[in-house]
Amino acid sequence: MSQSNLFEHPLNERTRLYLRVEQLTQQLRRAVASGDRQCHLDAFRPLFDLAELLDRSDLKQDLLKQVELSSAQLKKWQSLPGVDQQQLQQLIDRLGEHCQQLHQMDKPGQTLKQDRFLCQVKQRLNAIGGLVGFDLPRLQHWLYQPEPKRRQQLEQWLGALAPMPEVIGQQLQLIRECSPWQGQLAKQGQFLHNDPNSLALLRIRLDTLHGVYPVVSGHRSRFSINMMNDNASTECRDIPFEMALAVETP
Amino acid sequence: MSQSNLFEHPLNERTRLYLRVEQLTQQLRRAVASGDRQCHLDAFRPLFDLAELLDRSDLKQDLLKQVELSSAQLKKWQSLPGVDQQQLQQLIDRLGEHCQQLHQMDKPGQTLKQDRFLCQVKQRLNAIGGLVGFDLPRLQHWLYQPEPKRRQQLEQWLGALAPMPEVIGQQLQLIRECSPWQGQLAKQGQFLHNDPNSLALLRIRLDTLHGVYPVVSGHRSRFSINMMNDNASTECRDIPFEMALAVETP
Repeated sequence: MSQSNLFEHPLNERTRLYLRVEQLTQQLRRAVASGDRQCHLDAFRPLFDLAELLDRSDLKQDLLKQVELSSAQLKKWQSLPGVDQQQLQQLIDRLGEHCQQLHQMDKPGQTLKQDRFLCQVKQRLNAIGGLVGFDLPRLQHWLYQPEPKRRQQLEQWLGALAPMPEVIGQQLQLIRECSPWQGQLAKQGQFLHNDPNSLALLRIRLDTLHGVYPVVSGHRSRFSINMMNDNASTECRDIPFEMALAVETP
Repeated sequence: MSQSNLFEHPLNERTRLYLRVEQLTQQLRRAVASGDRQCHLDAFRPLFDLAELLDRSDLKQDLLKQVELSSAQLKKWQSLPGVDQQQLQQLIDRLGEHCQQLHQMDKPGQTLKQDRFLCQVKQRLNAIGGLVGFDLPRLQHWLYQPEPKRRQQLEQWLGALAPMPEVIGQQLQLIRECSPWQGQLAKQGQFLHNDPNSLALLRIRLDTLHGVYPVVSGHRSRFSINMMNDNASTECRDIPFEMALAVETP
């Protein structure tokens, strides 16, 4: 049985940011959950990157607007026949909670910035040779703590960024679910697309049998896909693939 | 039963480098062995850091000299009574192999520098937000490969740095084994030491019951230890600890 690989490409800046936040959050949650010392050490980098990405003055307002737009969209669907009303209502309720949480939140990551220990770790993080015990004995002392204590503190630090990672994850899920898959063909490995709509996200599913990966360029309503092979050059065969296009919330 | 934590502090530049190389090698080997995609993605940073640390023109000669000095030291011990001759001979043989391998080696990591894929990954590695699929679809394609294939390639890249990580690991082991533990007391949390010898490595064992960690400053023949508590200030009680001092190979 053949398998397919999924590739996603953001077509606007907002989705680009959302995908980064989602990836870092997953990475961080995994590191925290795994529990051993090295993994907990690996949690600091995504934590700082996440805090930096979410520290934009306009992000909260923009996110609020997006959640409200999604909510309005879902409410329109309530009048459609054959819709699972219960599921839809649950989703609308969750978006309502997200709005409320966003209204109530302080500046995300502010407590992280004020934490002296985290500042020390952050300073050391990009030194060549990584974080070795003697660089920062305080960090080593922290790592020597019992696992539940380390985990609790990491979760608390992640919590200082709430609810943004959850809200962004939910928005991405809505974006993905609203884009149906369609079969396409990259003739001689190439595919061009012009769209009447302003697009947010391009998703590509490729059968592993072809042994290629897509390199996408372009944004919003116009993009090209080049199917590249293992030698990093365009594959000249015709390559069938599946594509899903998510439209920007108006 | 109480437990103790180990802290190591290099007292010369050579040991500082060795400890970094050892830490990165362990981190890399662990990431390669673990096998899942995120861990294999996490292998790139220690790989590049290791390649950069080992890319010093004088390192090979210095390492050769160290291995020869260790070997001469071990040969002196062969005439001592009560020594496990067989084990000693094995160690001397291994150091002999290391010398030979070092003589034969090319510039370490040269093949890594010439690998275009690795260069692309390295360029992206320090961007805020980490490596997300859309940044480098070729990397995503690489990660989608079956696990044994990824692992094989990572091991091959690590192999391009051989035998340096192994030789350095062995040298550190010798340094550690030649330093006996002795009980000490940090009066009011402080400890000062002047040594007639030039030192390479300070090792400290601290009972977890004290809840402190040591901050060391100084190098070669003179250093001070400050026992710090969870509030990152010097603990004013007397703190007993164990200390082992490794002398520089003459």
